[in-house]
Amino acid sequence: MSIPVKRPAKAPFPSGIVLRGLFMTGCIAALMLLWSAINPAPSADGQRAITPRGNLAADEQATITLFERARGSVVSISTRQYVEDVWTRNVFAVPQGTGSGIIWDEAGHVVTNFHVIRGASEATIRLADGRKFRAALVRGSPENDIAVLKIGIGLKAPPPIPIGTSGDLRVGQKVFAIGNPFGLDWTLTTGIVSALNRTLQDEQGGAIEHLIQTDAAINPGNSGGPLLDSAGRLIGMNTMIYSPSGASAGIGFAVPVDRLRQMVPRIIRAAN
Amino acid sequence: MSIPVKRPAKAPFPSGIVLRGLFMTGCIAALMLLWSAINPAPSADGQRAITPRGNLAADEQATITLFERARGSVVSISTRQYVEDVWTRNVFAVPQGTGSGIIWDEAGHVVTNFHVIRGASEATIRLADGRKFRAALVRGSPENDIAVLKIGIGLKAPPPIPIGTSGDLRVGQKVFAIGNPFGLDWTLTTGIVSALNRTLQDEQGGAIEHLIQTDAAINPGNSGGPLLDSAGRLIGMNTMIYSPSGASAGIGFAVPVDRLRQMVPRIIRAAN
Amino acid sequence: MSIPVKRPAKAPFPSGIVLRGLFMTGCIAALMLLWSAINPAPSADGQRAITPRGNLAADEQATITLFERARGSVVSISTRQYVEDVWTRNVFAVPQGTGSGIIWDEAGHVVTNFHVIRGASEATIRLADGRKFRAALVRGSPENDIAVLKIGIGLKAPPPIPIGTSGDLRVGQKVFAIGNPFGLDWTLTTGIVSALNRTLQDEQGGAIEHLIQTDAAINPGNSGGPLLDSAGRLIGMNTMIYSPSGASAGIGFAVPVDRLRQMVPRIIRAAN
Repeated sequence: MSIPVKRPAKAPFPSGIVLRGLFMTGCIAALMLLWSAINPAPSADGQRAITPRGNLAADEQATITLFERARGSVVSISTRQYVEDVWTRNVFAVPQGTGSGIIWDEAGHVVTNFHVIRGASEATIRLADGRKFRAALVRGSPENDIAVLKIGIGLKAPPPIPIGTSGDLRVGQKVFAIGNPFGLDWTLTTGIVSALNRTLQDEQGGAIEHLIQTDAAINPGNSGGPLLDSAGRLIGMNTMIYSPSGASAGIGFAVPVDRLRQMVPRIIRAAN
Repeated sequence: MSIPVKRPAKAPFPSGIVLRGLFMTGCIAALMLLWSAINPAPSADGQRAITPRGNLAADEQATITLFERARGSVVSISTRQYVEDVWTRNVFAVPQGTGSGIIWDEAGHVVTNFHVIRGASEATIRLADGRKFRAALVRGSPENDIAVLKIGIGLKAPPPIPIGTSGDLRVGQKVFAIGNPFGLDWTLTTGIVSALNRTLQDEQGGAIEHLIQTDAAINPGNSGGPLLDSAGRLIGMNTMIYSPSGASAGIGFAVPVDRLRQMVPRIIRAAN
Repeated sequence: MSIPVKRPAKAPFPSGIVLRGLFMTGCIAALMLLWSAINPAPSADGQRAITPRGNLAADEQATITLFERARGSVVSISTRQYVEDVWTRNVFAVPQGTGSGIIWDEAGHVVTNFHVIRGASEATIRLADGRKFRAALVRGSPENDIAVLKIGIGLKAPPPIPIGTSGDLRVGQKVFAIGNPFGLDWTLTTGIVSALNRTLQDEQGGAIEHLIQTDAAINPGNSGGPLLDSAGRLIGMNTMIYSPSGASAGIGFAVPVDRLRQMVPRIIRAAN
């Protein structure tokens, strides 16, 4: 409750007029811009002007930033198998498969799925900056479907991926997958955590437990690549899809990062 | 409104210094935390520390809450068919199929697709809390592809799903599907309303009308499960997919909830 | 700036009581509504009341508005091929295929993929308002997989789609596809930009460059339809999918709008 006093009788009025005038002018200008935006001048020869856009939404900007920060920590893996010509006894390296990998630490360790390199004679790792490296196999854990490779990185080491935890994941939170599906490198796909603690049979008849299920598009070639949370932290390694057609049906799986955190140092120590 | 008087001439200055000092210290501490977050200490043996994350985004939190509230109202249905051994005349119950269902009311009625239980001799319903019930068929409406089952729930009745309306749905609004695709129970997938009022042929040659189309991943086994809006209300019952491969291609369909609201009470009355 | 004076000593108190009373009553009423909403009265005959919902989230509303504004600029294309009966020499028009198209300008030019109309004898264009037009082929550029059709629009010309640019696209930003997958017209699907500058082989063995890759569901029939950014501007023309099953696996491609802006006027001029 207040009584306004001593408001000068004339001063506000003109300034109000000026303000209103400016405001109206602004409104009309905005309407004109809008009109020209939604009614571009007709053109018989198909020339079209570009409609300006405002800023990207905050969640779009967040996804763009997440990808920019994470892509350097993702690698593309292609493997070759040595095949001996039975007549000439010459040995050829033939392309075998492609997959994805994660820069684990600054020593040059790269984590991927064991099934990406199973049966391979050599593996080539490509970084996001275009450099190619011949990878050495540190060691694999077939029963966990985890393998550790190593590349001889020099001064410009790619950044290790930030590590999260899979212990507090919730069904419904956003996830982001980066990988090499069908050889399409550094592909970003998004979705949510669809379920947790899935137990699935792997191809060898063993059971892989505590898998994260997602509806982000995971396809062959995504194997070994990172699944990230909305903070850009590694929460899992994409591993399998469930699909009658061999391509994404909105049901993909990832090994939880807590198992990687437990197993990868063991695998590296066992190799030394 | 107050008139500040007698503000001591010197007091604010030192306190300003203190505040600025605290602020600067805070800023530096934040930068140090950020630095250690983005530059984890190198580790030759692959040990990695967990990067802390901030809060989940508001829309992630909303989806998590939606799933937590709705999952108790969704059931998993597995059916068996009695088969008689022609020699021994013994009768065996063999697994027939799986689907999803919706807790409709506190009397224990469960709504699902008629095609989920078509030809089945018995149906077992599993609740989200792990309990299993042998379901009784109340009645089915094959031409609407709706069936009502009933379980003898006791003291701890599962919560009926909140009911929405399909009359004011808009193309573009978010939808959430919960179900049992390929036997993967309580799977959450998300997408948007892709179209409304679709008319499709069903497997028997009849036409089902006014279907909701969505790009949320709907797969075999999702049939009979709920399609929810962003308020967690039932807006449809997932029913069909359109796909040459038999798995989600981003084109799924749901019977609108308004038809369920109209038909389910009729089906239950007709059975009494 | 005001000085409160003469505030009566007693007046506020009773009015405060009234206000508090009203407020408490309102609160209790709200709680009762909430209670009845989350605890609907049990019903043995399956009658269920509708739970009210709050407003749609801002991003849902944005997608709804985007679709409402853009759908009028998208067309459905169906083609027929003339086949001659070798005995009677009668000529029949048999259905050949379906695709999507984009209203390019107010002169009635419609842009689509060349492969949508390849080999067709006639094409029918359906507008979002239900009108059907027999389309004339202006000209095609098979090596760019772009074709321009024209319809004789009258007074109620459909709105040309707002044009964006593909030069500043970022991996991670949202995209929206409208089209006619499997004949399901005006289907809206959403996703993100998964990658940029993809080079792919087309069916004729040529290479199409600078393609936009998206995880929005793109299926056969989406070809020729628009890919929009979150401002509702055209950023690409959906063209291909990568999938072993012939349906969306979360990997779709679009010709960037900058190529359309360059080629479409040339194609139209070359035809005049």
